[in-house]
Amino acid sequence: MSDAPVQTHALDYRAILQNTTSRTDAFLRDFIASRDGVPALLRESIEYSLFGPGKRVRPALAILSAQAVGGTPEAALPAAAALELIHCFSLVHDDLPSMDNDDLRRGRPTNHKVYGDAVAILAGDAMNTLAFELLAESLSDPALAVKLSLELARATGPAGMIGGQILDTCYPQLKHVDSQAADLASLQRIHRLKTGALIRAACRMGGISAQADAWHLQILDELGQAVGLVFQIVDDLLDVTSSDAHLGKKTGKDADIGKLTYPVLLGVEQTNAELNRQQKLAEQALARLGPAAEPLSLVVHALARRDK
Amino acid sequence: MSDAPVQTHALDYRAILQNTTSRTDAFLRDFIASRDGVPALLRESIEYSLFGPGKRVRPALAILSAQAVGGTPEAALPAAAALELIHCFSLVHDDLPSMDNDDLRRGRPTNHKVYGDAVAILAGDAMNTLAFELLAESLSDPALAVKLSLELARATGPAGMIGGQILDTCYPQLKHVDSQAADLASLQRIHRLKTGALIRAACRMGGISAQADAWHLQILDELGQAVGLVFQIVDDLLDVTSSDAHLGKKTGKDADIGKLTYPVLLGVEQTNAELNRQQKLAEQALARLGPAAEPLSLVVHALARRDK
Repeated sequence: MSDAPVQTHALDYRAILQNTTSRTDAFLRDFIASRDGVPALLRESIEYSLFGPGKRVRPALAILSAQAVGGTPEAALPAAAALELIHCFSLVHDDLPSMDNDDLRRGRPTNHKVYGDAVAILAGDAMNTLAFELLAESLSDPALAVKLSLELARATGPAGMIGGQILDTCYPQLKHVDSQAADLASLQRIHRLKTGALIRAACRMGGISAQADAWHLQILDELGQAVGLVFQIVDDLLDVTSSDAHLGKKTGKDADIGKLTYPVLLGVEQTNAELNRQQKLAEQALARLGPAAEPLSLVVHALARRDK
Repeated sequence: MSDAPVQTHALDYRAILQNTTSRTDAFLRDFIASRDGVPALLRESIEYSLFGPGKRVRPALAILSAQAVGGTPEAALPAAAALELIHCFSLVHDDLPSMDNDDLRRGRPTNHKVYGDAVAILAGDAMNTLAFELLAESLSDPALAVKLSLELARATGPAGMIGGQILDTCYPQLKHVDSQAADLASLQRIHRLKTGALIRAACRMGGISAQADAWHLQILDELGQAVGLVFQIVDDLLDVTSSDAHLGKKTGKDADIGKLTYPVLLGVEQTNAELNRQQKLAEQALARLGPAAEPLSLVVHALARRDK
């Protein structure tokens, strides 16, 4: 980590995130507004979750990864917007009563609390599909559209985010068959899939959007893997150490429901050690990318601190 | 309708459907088997719904539409397989307790009755995403992959099948605001979206896979619209006139829950008149396609009779 004052960093990364967020939101609003024939209730439910408060982490990673390898922010906007559609779809479904059963998300009632389970399921389904519609219609180069679509589908699907969610949701029921060693392997697999796959895809899709060569794409891949783990470990730690009001969602419930997390399994101290290890790996990747990765570096550091 | 004996038609269309089904299933089995890293429970749930008994109507329409405009069956297999993934995803989600709440589908317990709601939701999500993964990786021509992906996403998404499902699911609650005239418009909109969009896309995607020109694509479009309505009207009629055992699912429940259907709104006689009108439109489109559309024509006729 840099020795520069936190305040300077805090200002910088805030301006950067504000910029990537407003570009992504403008792109998403244009895209959603231009869909004809969407039933009003479905549109409202989609917009409730898509344009609610959110940090837009994945779009920022995609846009700044593109910049880090010499691309423009504009080139990465379709990837950024598609990633956010997938992320929002996953939040809406993960919050459902049969999954994590959350009433609160980003300080507001969850989608199914407002619109009911049926509409929430369908709004999530719609955002899943819309991500691929967006990629298919927003890129002038078909070969690039196919590459991005394949990358996003694999990161989202049964061997990616959705696969991670099933392991996470079903873990409490499956727990009795696992030993402690299997627990750590399970935990790592869940994290790699559930949060990691889409974060990694964000970095890779930014690079692909900027037509990065294989060498740069490999660095972005390694960065994405480390950042994904950092992000999830910080999230696990916050569930143990924060209050509901600070996070805008219910805390302390992971342990309550027997969910597998780093602090539950390793304790807070060892969890912090793993966090530092992953942060160093991210640091090394960022250093290899050079000066064009400075904005990306600031945002990655802020994510690791989970600053407000 | 042709004057040829039903028996001859029945034999022909069965052989044709058996052929398109076995090609599609082989393609889908290869595709699913080659996905690495899918959690076992999720794979089992996906395969339960994807490879259960099913008529494979959409794959047949795609493959035979390709043939009708001079293409090979092989060219249409990615489209056929992707369409079936989307169709199966929609069945799994539509059957959920918060939607149609069906316990029985194609004579077997529905996915959520076997695996629980969480797994069923995630299996549906996975099949939705897998359809786009399949299109992105199965076609050597990126421009064709993008066209098919766009066509499928639009037919599936909030202005297509998913939009139709929300109207259908929420209709009983919204009913009081609609007059009789609005009812018919609502019914037509629901049918056009919920079943029609994907049937129409099947015919169009077959044509696109075969690199059909605009004139042929327009005919396939008109055929698809008529077939979609025929299919839905026959389904509505069967709910009124059939038994549970014959259909392999619960019947007579549409009227029970105040669902909007043609027989509920127009009565059986007028519903049959509308069915005949749509069948004639399909007939006209098939005639314009010429002799290469003969297998497609046999299957369309069989669908209209809903033969076993």
